[in-house]
Amino acid sequence: KQTLAAKQTLAVIGGDGIGPEVVAEGLKVLTATVGDAAFDLVPYDLGAQRWQRTGEVLPDSVLEELRGVDAIVLGAVGAAPGSTAIPSGLLERGLLLKLRFAFDQYVNLRPSKLYPGVVTPLSDAVVGRGPIDFVVVREGVEGLYAGVGGSMATGTAFEVANEVSVNTARGVERVVRDAFERALRRRKKVTLVHKHNVLVNAGGLWNRLFTAVAQEYPDVTTDYLHVDATMIMLVQDPQRFDVIVTDNLFGDIITDLAGAVTGGIGLSPSACINPEGTNPSMFEPVHGSAPDIAGQGVADPTATISSMALLLDHLGRPEDAARIETAVDADVAERGASRRSTSAIGDAIAARV
Amino acid sequence: KQTLAAKQTLAVIGGDGIGPEVVAEGLKVLTATVGDAAFDLVPYDLGAQRWQRTGEVLPDSVLEELRGVDAIVLGAVGAAPGSTAIPSGLLERGLLLKLRFAFDQYVNLRPSKLYPGVVTPLSDAVVGRGPIDFVVVREGVEGLYAGVGGSMATGTAFEVANEVSVNTARGVERVVRDAFERALRRRKKVTLVHKHNVLVNAGGLWNRLFTAVAQEYPDVTTDYLHVDATMIMLVQDPQRFDVIVTDNLFGDIITDLAGAVTGGIGLSPSACINPEGTNPSMFEPVHGSAPDIAGQGVADPTATISSMALLLDHLGRPEDAARIETAVDADVAERGASRRSTSAIGDAIAARV
Ligand SMILES: CC(C)[C@H](C(=O)O)[C@@H](O)C(=O)O
Ligand SMILES: CC(C)[C@H](C(=O)O)[C@@H](O)C(=O)O
Repeated sequence: KQTLAAKQTLAVIGGDGIGPEVVAEGLKVLTATVGDAAFDLVPYDLGAQRWQRTGEVLPDSVLEELRGVDAIVLGAVGAAPGSTAIPSGLLERGLLLKLRFAFDQYVNLRPSKLYPGVVTPLSDAVVGRGPIDFVVVREGVEGLYAGVGGSMATGTAFEVANEVSVNTARGVERVVRDAFERALRRRKKVTLVHKHNVLVNAGGLWNRLFTAVAQEYPDVTTDYLHVDATMIMLVQDPQRFDVIVTDNLFGDIITDLAGAVTGGIGLSPSACINPEGTNPSMFEPVHGSAPDIAGQGVADPTATISSMALLLDHLGRPEDAARIETAVDADVAERGASRRSTSAIGDAIAARV
Repeated sequence: KQTLAAKQTLAVIGGDGIGPEVVAEGLKVLTATVGDAAFDLVPYDLGAQRWQRTGEVLPDSVLEELRGVDAIVLGAVGAAPGSTAIPSGLLERGLLLKLRFAFDQYVNLRPSKLYPGVVTPLSDAVVGRGPIDFVVVREGVEGLYAGVGGSMATGTAFEVANEVSVNTARGVERVVRDAFERALRRRKKVTLVHKHNVLVNAGGLWNRLFTAVAQEYPDVTTDYLHVDATMIMLVQDPQRFDVIVTDNLFGDIITDLAGAVTGGIGLSPSACINPEGTNPSMFEPVHGSAPDIAGQGVADPTATISSMALLLDHLGRPEDAARIETAVDADVAERGASRRSTSAIGDAIAARV
């Protein structure tokens, strides 16, 4: 299934807001890189619009169809935060997280790199310390995202609402191991981020398995930071990070900050990976549907385009992935503060691959 | 009990690492402000050293004694993160959180202000947008800090470790109301930070009560941000915040980032407040015990000194509080990047009050 000769199938979920616009540019660059013949692109109509039209979020039949594809490209789903058009969490839990969980995409990989010339909210003094280039390996299918929780006396003055973070030895060990494997191919340092001084149960488990797995990787340096201290380090000394491994919620929080300090989540790619390949992996920008700027052709498609490099790498085409990365590097280095349209950025990067 | 005439009792817990050093300077400035006669200062020997010596973290008798004081001044407790000298969480849960919970200090107040001239990791472009001055009202006695959770098959390959975030209508409503009250005395804007698209139960409760309380404050503007988006805003546009209200864990994370962007948590004061005054409130810097720099006289006591202003304000001495704030403002504005000793900073601020 993963040999170069056979044509592979990509499910394409443009989704809502700017999702379809940025996905179009991602596919443009993908096609420019590997040609028309490498992939069958199968569009799927899922997201807020479908729900509003049909009341369906993700029919079981569609979920089963998706299980058979080689990878999924996703733009963004959901309404604006605070919008009441769609019940909060409906699409997030019913579609996005459903896919991550159903396909056991337990490695949520989010690289952060400050490209030369990119405007960052960090001072010259911080940026001048050296290159910023790290990846967050975020656990993708456990923790507070498990959907375990509930409320009683709901809507009354006596309501109690609980959320449960569920962490399993199997789930923690496999993602920690993935982080160490990635570190071997990078600068050989893994930082565990948790809050084990308060979350003693989950933190104890993460600590124990991190320490155990580290024994098997004597060449990899290890490090521990509480999540609160991590916030400080990400703005004061982001150069200290190579690979960060952390749980689902901390990973969510850290990667948005990481995106911001490296020039904005408009540049931040992500991959929801099922490393065994039993199920399809999913490639999506870190950013959301940004309905406020949808339809204007001003969204930056770079994050989605970089996610296509992660996709090619995952599908066994590292050289093609590198071509996209090089093209993105060159484009970003040149763009400065100039504003180009969504399609102009896609065209420019496609022309370089 | 809160009239100016009567002498009030302050329990003083210097704690570990740099704790005693910064507390000494805080008390120096406090005494310089209100004189010797205002407070009885009663030292309590609690923290890592006491535990190592006696095996006691916080004896019940001490807890009951503390219940009777007018306020508590706390330096910092705990060993270095990652240290194995003290079991992880022992002092945090057995002492610091125990005090916050036992005394129902449900408003964990953390102001962040960028003083002119202070070095920040943010770029000139971000800082140049305007003054950065906001407070985080962090819920202090619920959420993931409740200590509800556990593990099974502990230490095996089948371990499951859970942490439960517990949120009650009563607990959420009272802290949200506190945030709105504070906003009335500030720029009249409250931002709720949560993650209701994933944590639908807790998020639903927070949303519902935030919306309900907001109705009672028609002059206050409201706003909602997911915690991940908040990370971005804190580095790209911190000026947008006036009062942030959020849960215990999000508050922990946000306030360290807030401290970092306003020049480091060496400047960040905090107050754990029991607004009803039924129990003592506690005043402590946001930073920890920093054992790596303890005993060298180099720790910055400014956060503790500013916490003394919060203490005086809470004990009904707003004018004395303002004198400390003015003195801190002036000292910080003058210090630039110069390095002074812990006591030199305390002396300088004490001389100004
Ligand atoms: C939309 C939301 C459910 C999602 C998450 O929290 O994982 C997003 O913030 C992300 O980081 O991909
Ligand atoms: C030491 C720790 C338990 C504490 C917390 O998490 O509340 C600290 O980080 C803080 O912010 O006061």
